[in-house]
Amino acid sequence: MEKDTEDMMKKPIIGITMGDPAGNGPEISVKALAHAQLYEFCRPVVVGDAGMIKQAVRIAGRPDMIVHPCNSISEAKFMPGIIDVLDLELIRDPAEFQLGKVSVEGGSAAFRSVKKVIELAMAGEVDATCTNAFSKEAVNLALQEEKGRYSEGRTHFDGHTEIYAAYTQTKRYAMMLMLHDFRVVHVSTHCSLRQACEKVKKARVLEVIEMAHSACLNMGIVQPHIAVAGLNPHCGENGMFGTEEQTEIKPAIEAAREKGIDAIGPLPPDSVFSEALGGIYDIVVCMYHDQGHIPIKTAGFVYDRKKQRWKTVEGVNITLGLPIIRTSVDHGTGFAMAGKGTSSEASLMNAIECAARMAQHKTGRLPG
Amino acid sequence: MEKDTEDMMKKPIIGITMGDPAGNGPEISVKALAHAQLYEFCRPVVVGDAGMIKQAVRIAGRPDMIVHPCNSISEAKFMPGIIDVLDLELIRDPAEFQLGKVSVEGGSAAFRSVKKVIELAMAGEVDATCTNAFSKEAVNLALQEEKGRYSEGRTHFDGHTEIYAAYTQTKRYAMMLMLHDFRVVHVSTHCSLRQACEKVKKARVLEVIEMAHSACLNMGIVQPHIAVAGLNPHCGENGMFGTEEQTEIKPAIEAAREKGIDAIGPLPPDSVFSEALGGIYDIVVCMYHDQGHIPIKTAGFVYDRKKQRWKTVEGVNITLGLPIIRTSVDHGTGFAMAGKGTSSEASLMNAIECAARMAQHKTGRLPG
Repeated sequence: MEKDTEDMMKKPIIGITMGDPAGNGPEISVKALAHAQLYEFCRPVVVGDAGMIKQAVRIAGRPDMIVHPCNSISEAKFMPGIIDVLDLELIRDPAEFQLGKVSVEGGSAAFRSVKKVIELAMAGEVDATCTNAFSKEAVNLALQEEKGRYSEGRTHFDGHTEIYAAYTQTKRYAMMLMLHDFRVVHVSTHCSLRQACEKVKKARVLEVIEMAHSACLNMGIVQPHIAVAGLNPHCGENGMFGTEEQTEIKPAIEAAREKGIDAIGPLPPDSVFSEALGGIYDIVVCMYHDQGHIPIKTAGFVYDRKKQRWKTVEGVNITLGLPIIRTSVDHGTGFAMAGKGTSSEASLMNAIECAARMAQHKTGRLPG
Repeated sequence: MEKDTEDMMKKPIIGITMGDPAGNGPEISVKALAHAQLYEFCRPVVVGDAGMIKQAVRIAGRPDMIVHPCNSISEAKFMPGIIDVLDLELIRDPAEFQLGKVSVEGGSAAFRSVKKVIELAMAGEVDATCTNAFSKEAVNLALQEEKGRYSEGRTHFDGHTEIYAAYTQTKRYAMMLMLHDFRVVHVSTHCSLRQACEKVKKARVLEVIEMAHSACLNMGIVQPHIAVAGLNPHCGENGMFGTEEQTEIKPAIEAAREKGIDAIGPLPPDSVFSEALGGIYDIVVCMYHDQGHIPIKTAGFVYDRKKQRWKTVEGVNITLGLPIIRTSVDHGTGFAMAGKGTSSEASLMNAIECAARMAQHKTGRLPG
């Protein structure tokens, strides 16, 4: 085998879902894969509809990019300038398909792309998966309309994470967000704030601390330093307002420490993120969705006042606890922006890079 | 009257409490008042103990600053280089007083400084008040030990805000935080997260929207553009997880709009702050303490990784709804740092400047 080919084979294959084709997934996929340096550390392949990606090449203003439809991963060329698309032939007529709208066709395409990429990862055909955004409404509309035809009879999923959990038979999982080396992981995500309070239980907090620890190790952090946030303001100020810190969170931290995990807390939720952003902790265990999402987005989504548009929309979403690697953009479908070619590919680039790094670490491969 | 004196008289008098003398309040007061430009727009006077401030002059490494003890505001000189202190003679022996520790003497001194500055503002002797941090534990310990001797028989206050509310007979108030032109205001603050969910009621949300609107007008914003955050992640995603958005928050926004207030929402709590930081809104109405505190501190507290110390600790705390102006630092007492002279005066400078701007606007005085 030639040296070049050998080097190439060491790079992890990343399966990237197209997302809802009515959103900005196709165009940001094109923009991301147009960065030749991506191919220096991974072998990316889009899973979705080749016709939509061809259209996105025009939308993104990159007519120099060649779309290469594939029937299997083995057909992919993995060369800069060529976008390999595992073509599931999901959209009847891309020219007629309406952008920016919830539709059964879009939701079904998004769902089937996700299901396919999970199968590929479970079969070892891709080393990691990376998802673009879909509309939960569109996906669930499609599952209902199609009466579970493509979803083993199921007509509802809460979101991407639940689809991954179902198709990989995973019971314990958690959502992590990452902005460069600022990381958060959630005890609960898509439930009401009242329910989130109920879910702050010792066993679950401990489970998430353990997943945070493993994830950091998988990312090459030798001795992960973990901060655990409180639930209540000021951590309840010694029980004056809220007791979960004492009854659930502290015991979970103590149990983790007994297992040799370097976790500390509970720490005041309003200042722990400034410390983590300052590099004092490798990851923060958060008690509910917005406790972790607010600081990540406050730091990662920056609006340019002069140009009146987003300067950076950065951040990666990673599902912990799965037998396969899954990273994702941490923004929505961008229906309002779809078709304009102006959406930023930054978050997707981050997500692909993160997936590649995790895959390299997992398989013991070193960055190419 | 000479022109200089006349100009001087237009500048608002700001009463600044010393905070807990065992914390960093005295030293950051000295550091703030050592900035001569402060005197260009206001007439600052410290309310507390002159002996402690003399000691803080040494701690802050500013022996050039002269401490001028006063018995009344009329004795103050308001000149750069001189720190006027309304001397309540609170600390028996500053040389013996222990820094960095909770004590009855410290708590009592902090409480009496606050009570005094409120009285001065109510009597019109100062135009605005600005508070350094105290220890809630120390204050309540003092109130109990002294059996309410200095507090009209009361032996407990939740915090600064409640002391202000009590001594100004105010029932409706709200905590606002400000970092330059990024502003948040809270529907509830110091209660458990479970209680905070209970407090999201139409009447209270409307009340806080109205206070936010008035506060923006008082700060010179002609047409305040107000964002109202949801309570649940993704605003409950159309009732899928949480209904407060539909039953309480939306009706409050509609009622505010009927009154001619430009309020919009409910908006997703994880992205609204990036928009507000980008100047899209003048203020965000937040449903609970940490929803507003997390983004303000994430943006305002910046740790310098190389120097391994805080680069900026900025932000101002403002109590809305009071008949007098009150701003405050938005950090704690810094007991661990007290006496080192290294604490940043940035937040106190912000708070004094903000108090001055609000006072100038309120009285129709233009900046000097």
